[in-house]
Amino acid sequence: MEAAGAEGDVAAELRQRLAAGGQDHVLRFWPELDGAARRALAAELCRMDVAEINRFFRRARGDGGGAAAAAAAAGLDARMEPVPRDVLGSASRDRGLVPRWESRGLAEIAASRVAALLLAGGQGTRLGVPYPKGMCDVGLPSRKTLFHLQAQRLQRLQQMAEEQHGTPCHIPWYIMTSGRTMESTKEFFQKHRYFGLKKENVIFFQQGMLPALGFDGKILLEEKGKIAMAPDGNGGLYRALGSHGIMDDMERRGVHSVHVYCVDNILVKVADPRFIGFCLEKGADCGAKVVEKTNPTEPVGVVCRVDGVYRVVEYSEISLGTAQQRGPDGRLLFNAGNIANHYFTTAFLKDVVNTYEPQLQHHVAEKKIPHVDITTGQLVQPEKPNGIKMEKFVFDIFQFSKKFVVYEVLREDEFSPLKNADSQNGKDNPTTARHALMSLHHCWVLNAGGHFVDENGTRIPAIPRITNGRSAASPADVNDNLKDANDLPIQCEISPLVSYGGEGLEQLVKDREFRTPLIIDEDGIHELVKNGV
Amino acid sequence: MEAAGAEGDVAAELRQRLAAGGQDHVLRFWPELDGAARRALAAELCRMDVAEINRFFRRARGDGGGAAAAAAAAGLDARMEPVPRDVLGSASRDRGLVPRWESRGLAEIAASRVAALLLAGGQGTRLGVPYPKGMCDVGLPSRKTLFHLQAQRLQRLQQMAEEQHGTPCHIPWYIMTSGRTMESTKEFFQKHRYFGLKKENVIFFQQGMLPALGFDGKILLEEKGKIAMAPDGNGGLYRALGSHGIMDDMERRGVHSVHVYCVDNILVKVADPRFIGFCLEKGADCGAKVVEKTNPTEPVGVVCRVDGVYRVVEYSEISLGTAQQRGPDGRLLFNAGNIANHYFTTAFLKDVVNTYEPQLQHHVAEKKIPHVDITTGQLVQPEKPNGIKMEKFVFDIFQFSKKFVVYEVLREDEFSPLKNADSQNGKDNPTTARHALMSLHHCWVLNAGGHFVDENGTRIPAIPRITNGRSAASPADVNDNLKDANDLPIQCEISPLVSYGGEGLEQLVKDREFRTPLIIDEDGIHELVKNGV
Repeated sequence: MEAAGAEGDVAAELRQRLAAGGQDHVLRFWPELDGAARRALAAELCRMDVAEINRFFRRARGDGGGAAAAAAAAGLDARMEPVPRDVLGSASRDRGLVPRWESRGLAEIAASRVAALLLAGGQGTRLGVPYPKGMCDVGLPSRKTLFHLQAQRLQRLQQMAEEQHGTPCHIPWYIMTSGRTMESTKEFFQKHRYFGLKKENVIFFQQGMLPALGFDGKILLEEKGKIAMAPDGNGGLYRALGSHGIMDDMERRGVHSVHVYCVDNILVKVADPRFIGFCLEKGADCGAKVVEKTNPTEPVGVVCRVDGVYRVVEYSEISLGTAQQRGPDGRLLFNAGNIANHYFTTAFLKDVVNTYEPQLQHHVAEKKIPHVDITTGQLVQPEKPNGIKMEKFVFDIFQFSKKFVVYEVLREDEFSPLKNADSQNGKDNPTTARHALMSLHHCWVLNAGGHFVDENGTRIPAIPRITNGRSAASPADVNDNLKDANDLPIQCEISPLVSYGGEGLEQLVKDREFRTPLIIDEDGIHELVKNGV
Repeated sequence: MEAAGAEGDVAAELRQRLAAGGQDHVLRFWPELDGAARRALAAELCRMDVAEINRFFRRARGDGGGAAAAAAAAGLDARMEPVPRDVLGSASRDRGLVPRWESRGLAEIAASRVAALLLAGGQGTRLGVPYPKGMCDVGLPSRKTLFHLQAQRLQRLQQMAEEQHGTPCHIPWYIMTSGRTMESTKEFFQKHRYFGLKKENVIFFQQGMLPALGFDGKILLEEKGKIAMAPDGNGGLYRALGSHGIMDDMERRGVHSVHVYCVDNILVKVADPRFIGFCLEKGADCGAKVVEKTNPTEPVGVVCRVDGVYRVVEYSEISLGTAQQRGPDGRLLFNAGNIANHYFTTAFLKDVVNTYEPQLQHHVAEKKIPHVDITTGQLVQPEKPNGIKMEKFVFDIFQFSKKFVVYEVLREDEFSPLKNADSQNGKDNPTTARHALMSLHHCWVLNAGGHFVDENGTRIPAIPRITNGRSAASPADVNDNLKDANDLPIQCEISPLVSYGGEGLEQLVKDREFRTPLIIDEDGIHELVKNGV
């Protein structure tokens, strides 16, 4: 093999290191690469700790790990216990306590002791967009993106806290991207001037990547000169917190409570003061916000105890019988549906970063991974799983909590994730996300005493006939020879700058009648002409 | 005006009768009609009781009825009470009692004392098909239609009852069609030889029609020689029961209990022995099967008490605040979602037909009704409501019950209506109906000890990753650069002839592994090659 000058030295050293780890096949096509490709590959490999990757693989899969994991999983159903009532706070069952929690949370925000942390490493692949999910516009009247909505919710919260407590405050917003989304995310925020937030309070950092491996533990090549890399799971958060000095930054800012959440939930109550106040009242170091799982076969992980330790059990880990179990009240026994909204104290996070995270094994996801065949050099598009990706999960650290709590909220108020492109029988797509937000804002206006009228000035009922999901057994459905023309929900959007969770609307809407589409924002109330949208 | 011979006599007599009722404008275009059109119009008008129609209109709308109705509705929210626990039987909360109810119901079926009554007057307009809904094939592997599934469920029930009680029995099946669906429905059943049922046990009858009226009470013309007619609502059932001698037929057959249901629910448990057994145990004359309403803005009517009397309150009749009320257990206070599945004793039905039905006012539905303008003769396609249709509702008679009960079942087991065509963000369409049935049958196989394996022979988890609705917060969703190819539920269909509600499958599936699509029918177990479907 030819090796010219400095480049050759690097290659030789790399080869030696890779060979020691049994991974030097990744240099198989080095002679065919041009200078730029060689430099790129060498740079990638220099950053890679091959010995560590091999160790991860052995722990996740080999050395009895697989067998041990299988043994641990075998009796899982029998070892599961539901979340006890005293650990649970519920927005629907403890409504009398909610104002106290909210007020406690707002005080904490006013003291600048609360941060939000956004998991935004995912690309919009399944969604069918070539940019990070947070940049998605789901077609709201305002055309705001997910990032925009979240930023404005933070701004409104700061304003509410300041108004109630009379001191200026800020909620630092930590945004974890991946190697694939960092640049476009930062550019997007710059272009939009941080959506009105202070630049210094928006902190970007990047999660790690790991190579995809064959079942034999060999690193896979995406191209002849490129390793098949994948982000290391949303649990990569904890490693990234350490390696990018985020814990120090939090300490410097005096942050005590951190709300960690995923980018894709259009209704997410970023830094929710109720959730934070509840966790503070309970003295928790770790908490999970959940929604009630009502259908046994809904594909959602549930928070529960296993051998007395809190964790999320994924829907694919349990039997149908367990998923179908019900308590005497008729609810599912395991109904605490995880929606990736977590509370951590910084002290707990620090312990995790310094002590616990390195103990966590990676989860193995078997995948169909397109790769270059090492012997033929051909690109292979496998039809069955041919390799693995190694990931940690953000909820893997629940087990280390000293005081763990669960906070249950209503799905229609807080959870509508954006995962798929619009399609027939679609779930969790731009249309469902848009409808969920507009339906919630419609309710806010009604609860604040406002009304909607149709084109003839007639009041539209609270639950209008014209929504897409019709009455389950509306008499007119049985004998109806006239199709309703309009199959859409009420078009209503309220800027987060005006209302974070429905508050403060009475003065704007009480006893007033509105036509749709209705937009309420910081500039006032806009009833748009239909043609205009 | 020209009037020739017998035709002229008829016209003159008609005109006189119509003029007496202020409806002779419908003959305005008589001179322009040819002989056939005149005969058709005269025949239609001869069947019509104009005085009665005017009376219906006055009672439904005028004579203070409107004002009285408005007054009655005004305080509705305050007068509503939820169904008390002692009136409620619940498949999820009273599971210990279900076997007893089922056994009681089967005994009643074995004694040939149970009938099913299908409301099938609706056309598939909203569904976008030019035939009755029951003839829809939603794309199941078997391509069975809704009628076919229901017929086979009845057949299986008869078989179960016979096996347990050793006597032959039958469940008469009364099918109410409308003028628009009668011929095609009957032809369909003939063509399919009544799906294996005895012809004499399938009894068709037709609900009534009423003309659409302008806001002034004037009958509208659809064409110059044709009245705009519409079915009189599913509550037209009670009048039709009397006018077609159905009550006599039931008496002759010794029927004691009748299960009334709508055609469009693919999961409907026709003549459900558990529901019937529960109603019998409670000594009820009238009962409603419900599913729990969990989202306040779900457009479903709820069963409740108003001024101490049971009724269905439609979602459009109540305020959002009432719909959002919750009990101390966190559930919606008004959560008994009506799914148009009712139980009646024949004695109660007889009282309704003879005594109560004529007292019921029609409900008024304001509609955009295409019609011929009486002065210009032009066809008008109105852009806002211009007239009314008068309907009675099947649940209007709850108020007359002496002993009313409510039976709550799980949505995923029993309710998935077919209302709309497939479309983006679709609800209640062929795809959701098909998925609901296959998902239920998948659960039956798992609960009977069967397993499903993928193309590599690996067991598929009970709640597989590959379903369309993905995990709410699956870690892989956050950092996933590989799209899952398969977004469909497990394909599994079990003939009703093999299992009515999941029973009897152990001997067929226990400890066996199946590939999909899986069909189990009276000929055995079929694992279809994917290309073959």
